[in-house]
Amino acid sequence: MPSITIYEVGPRDGLQNEAALISTADKVAFIDALSDAGLPVVEVSAFVSPAWVPQMADAEEVCRAIARRPGTRYSALVPNQKGLDRALSAGITDVAVFAAASETFSRRNINQSVADSLANYERVARQALDAGCRVRAYLSTAFGCPFEGDVALATVIDLTKALRNLGAYQVAVSDTIGVARPGQVRRVLEALTREVPATELALHFHDTRGMALVNVRASLDFGVATFDSSAGGLGGCPYAPGASGNLATEDLLYMLNGLGYETGVSIDAVAAASSALEPRLGHALSSHYLRARSPRAGHD
Amino acid sequence: MPSITIYEVGPRDGLQNEAALISTADKVAFIDALSDAGLPVVEVSAFVSPAWVPQMADAEEVCRAIARRPGTRYSALVPNQKGLDRALSAGITDVAVFAAASETFSRRNINQSVADSLANYERVARQALDAGCRVRAYLSTAFGCPFEGDVALATVIDLTKALRNLGAYQVAVSDTIGVARPGQVRRVLEALTREVPATELALHFHDTRGMALVNVRASLDFGVATFDSSAGGLGGCPYAPGASGNLATEDLLYMLNGLGYETGVSIDAVAAASSALEPRLGHALSSHYLRARSPRAGHD
Repeated sequence: MPSITIYEVGPRDGLQNEAALISTADKVAFIDALSDAGLPVVEVSAFVSPAWVPQMADAEEVCRAIARRPGTRYSALVPNQKGLDRALSAGITDVAVFAAASETFSRRNINQSVADSLANYERVARQALDAGCRVRAYLSTAFGCPFEGDVALATVIDLTKALRNLGAYQVAVSDTIGVARPGQVRRVLEALTREVPATELALHFHDTRGMALVNVRASLDFGVATFDSSAGGLGGCPYAPGASGNLATEDLLYMLNGLGYETGVSIDAVAAASSALEPRLGHALSSHYLRARSPRAGHD
Repeated sequence: MPSITIYEVGPRDGLQNEAALISTADKVAFIDALSDAGLPVVEVSAFVSPAWVPQMADAEEVCRAIARRPGTRYSALVPNQKGLDRALSAGITDVAVFAAASETFSRRNINQSVADSLANYERVARQALDAGCRVRAYLSTAFGCPFEGDVALATVIDLTKALRNLGAYQVAVSDTIGVARPGQVRRVLEALTREVPATELALHFHDTRGMALVNVRASLDFGVATFDSSAGGLGGCPYAPGASGNLATEDLLYMLNGLGYETGVSIDAVAAASSALEPRLGHALSSHYLRARSPRAGHD
């Protein structure tokens, strides 16, 4: 079995969708525990305006305080030049930019047209590459937009290629609103992997409608070997309106372990990291695996 | 695409795992709404001792009060002769018996050895068939036992054949504790479908560890065409200890619809039936699809 890379987004995509403000010390302990669990990449924060995302206001402090485990890379989201400068001075060498496959979503999310955002990211990526960074790109709403509905497959292919052309080593094709189903995933990947090698793609599924794992399973058939997930399902409480529904790292690991894939990650160490953070969140985490570990669970 | 039969177990397997006692009138309204949604089979109650399962004490009243929609069959669980007599006198013509693939689970769940339970069911099934009933059998803990751990594949095959031999038209191979993963599902079905036609099997997955849908997806490759699920995920709140984790009918439909399978069931009508019952339960239902319908959901 080939090995699968789990790209951990809990501290960034997860936490930025949590209402409770988490202390810097708790974030650092969480990230260090995820490192120790063997995760090969952890996205630790976003260098965005604190006015937009108060949860990410301590990006510098987090990046400076975490232990750097050999074997784990630490990435951060950077929306622009200023974010890149901040990230570089905080010692980040893996940065991520995020474009949208939907014009309306792009304008509402980052207040730029898709074309303007690509022009911006081209400059950011060039400087990041010049500084010796690796650059990753997210392509959000690739399977559907909350405002526009369906997204044209040609648009997804064109933007994925555009993001690679600006120097991204990997494009995380993202189901931001969790509408994708395995039939659509197959159709998208059949077309996309004819144009872009599967090894340069990651898939980022949200579990909003419960489809994340079956979509991962469908993606494996196309040779996709990197999947994004969030420890504990952080950021995605299905019982809260507005839940983003992040796929839980533990649930992804439970499935991949059962299919015989190597990940190098300890599922129980990830679960322990999630459990340690859980009391700070004000609600239970959504990971099925985490819930099933409670003593009385699963014996009906 | 072939069509898939959804065997709705919410009013029985779902409700018997809910703490709140639901009134007969609410159960009848729920079942009628599920019928109207187009579900081809609804398991409406269990003719078990009210001392064991107080939620099922009104089995007769429920069976007599529900509307019988042409095109929907109404089944009930019967553990023994007395249960069968009660079911027949309440007008039930589809009955289900339940055996376990684990000796310890059988003794703890129904206080009988597996062999004794089969001898019992043979008599029950013969009488049911003589009375013109269809007989279904559940084989619980087929993918793992909470007490014994792994269950031998040979045991699963032998018991599935034994249950067919006593006259069951279908055996619902059940992952009672929700431990199965698609690799195991493939291994079990590869062996099992060599001995028993896939058309005589149903798969009954619990979502305790989030694997139910990806296990359904794996089963589809073997020609399995009947899956059990519970409207709203009734009986399986992942936030409660002891959650059984029933697969939600809405989530199953959302996936099957996306794969192009015909079911004849309206997803929004099932969701409406679940939503109408939800205020009586004391907690939110676990169906992802149901949660994603809330106005603010899924737009992160």
